[in-house]
Amino acid sequence: MLTTEHLKQFAEDGYFVYPGCLSERAVRNLRAETDICAADREDPGLVREKDGDTVRGMHGIHLRNEMMSKLCRHPTLLALAKGVLGEDVYVHQFKLNIKAAFVGDVWEWHQDMTFYHREDEVPHPHFLTIAVLLDDVTEFNGPLLLIPGSHKEGFKDSNKHTIEAYDAESSWLSNTTAKLRYTVEHDTLRRLVHTHGLAAPKGKAGDIIVFHANVFHGSGVNMSPFDRRVAFISYNSVKNPPQPTRAQRPEFLCARNCAALQPCHDEVLM
Amino acid sequence: MLTTEHLKQFAEDGYFVYPGCLSERAVRNLRAETDICAADREDPGLVREKDGDTVRGMHGIHLRNEMMSKLCRHPTLLALAKGVLGEDVYVHQFKLNIKAAFVGDVWEWHQDMTFYHREDEVPHPHFLTIAVLLDDVTEFNGPLLLIPGSHKEGFKDSNKHTIEAYDAESSWLSNTTAKLRYTVEHDTLRRLVHTHGLAAPKGKAGDIIVFHANVFHGSGVNMSPFDRRVAFISYNSVKNPPQPTRAQRPEFLCARNCAALQPCHDEVLM
Repeated sequence: MLTTEHLKQFAEDGYFVYPGCLSERAVRNLRAETDICAADREDPGLVREKDGDTVRGMHGIHLRNEMMSKLCRHPTLLALAKGVLGEDVYVHQFKLNIKAAFVGDVWEWHQDMTFYHREDEVPHPHFLTIAVLLDDVTEFNGPLLLIPGSHKEGFKDSNKHTIEAYDAESSWLSNTTAKLRYTVEHDTLRRLVHTHGLAAPKGKAGDIIVFHANVFHGSGVNMSPFDRRVAFISYNSVKNPPQPTRAQRPEFLCARNCAALQPCHDEVLM
Repeated sequence: MLTTEHLKQFAEDGYFVYPGCLSERAVRNLRAETDICAADREDPGLVREKDGDTVRGMHGIHLRNEMMSKLCRHPTLLALAKGVLGEDVYVHQFKLNIKAAFVGDVWEWHQDMTFYHREDEVPHPHFLTIAVLLDDVTEFNGPLLLIPGSHKEGFKDSNKHTIEAYDAESSWLSNTTAKLRYTVEHDTLRRLVHTHGLAAPKGKAGDIIVFHANVFHGSGVNMSPFDRRVAFISYNSVKNPPQPTRAQRPEFLCARNCAALQPCHDEVLM
């Protein structure tokens, strides 16, 4: 389970990899469920790639899908989230990113805190995201890119863009497509990378990557014939809920229920 | 120089890496010259990225720039090209691809033969390209992706697209931007990768990669703060010149002078 080595790496690098978190059977079940979810054309939290067809990501499925809800409460995931944050947690946002073979597009460099703070008014970066790999991730299918240690420099200013095409369609879509609403100056990124370097952790299906709310990350295109399906589960401390001063984003992006989660030992994920 | 091991790898994989081909001084000189070339806003062979500003590539500079012309005749490069093809060679096309930090966009999967055969009417795949790395190439700045051994399956059908936006601007531009005029079916690529796998050779500035006209290759985006400048020099056998039945592409894409090159020992590249 969680070791002092993990905590040290989280403090130092802003992330750690935890191999073999999910069993082969759990991965198989989650992949099958992902396909079912992706086929739901009525899903309000579904975003497509620029081709207008390929599914890019699905938001908030844990609110409607039992297996995804259980994944959030997987004993190991929940123990890691609570252990690292030192608090009870709830899931602020859940997304399944597909990064489809040949088509999966980039995620620009960002800090999760930018979105959860500026859009949802989460006060502190006292949360983390667990990336659950549902496929083997290699250098070829768009691995997560991170600037290790960038979380130590805090929350950076970012530029808010109005992206007409996306905004015309939906006000939240521009936070979930290949063109992000918030971007950070290249000079800031350049300085961070020169100080801290770059990392692109790979892994097997069933491995997880735990990363800090302030760590800069992104990912490139997927030019391979292999999907790179990853569930990103953002756990927030129950002591750090949104303090909204205006209308909130839809529930599939910003949780309404901020009660402490309890582990679920269902054998479908064991 | 060229070894039987190189020839074996070229026959088997369709490419080989030749480390340390150019001296540090040569690399330094070539980088400085690349900057000078990129500043020439009148260059007819210059292509920009989608932002309309960042230089993506420059074609045919060897026709107008002395140092780039000498690079084509660098004794080692020329000996490798002639040694692999077993014939005298000329440069059919020369391009400097910048793959700029943060902005450099993809090159879709393609075979060079598609363009040189279908656009320029080069009869046979009896040519090769040498990629000269002018920057260190890592997993982060958009390395060349190859399907090793894919050249053994010959020349694949490809789909010709009319890309209105690009075509309105220029008839040749669509072969040099992130959206290629010719693309290959995903099923074909999927089958090739399942048979042959994928490779992404990295290297230091001054290393070169020699690859076959029929080997499938491409490259992803560059999300790093490090440019990935590479000169791609396509050497064709003098016995395999274009046999045009219609108007030829501009000289900066399709050579007019197909005479055998002689090595140049200028110390600027030694």
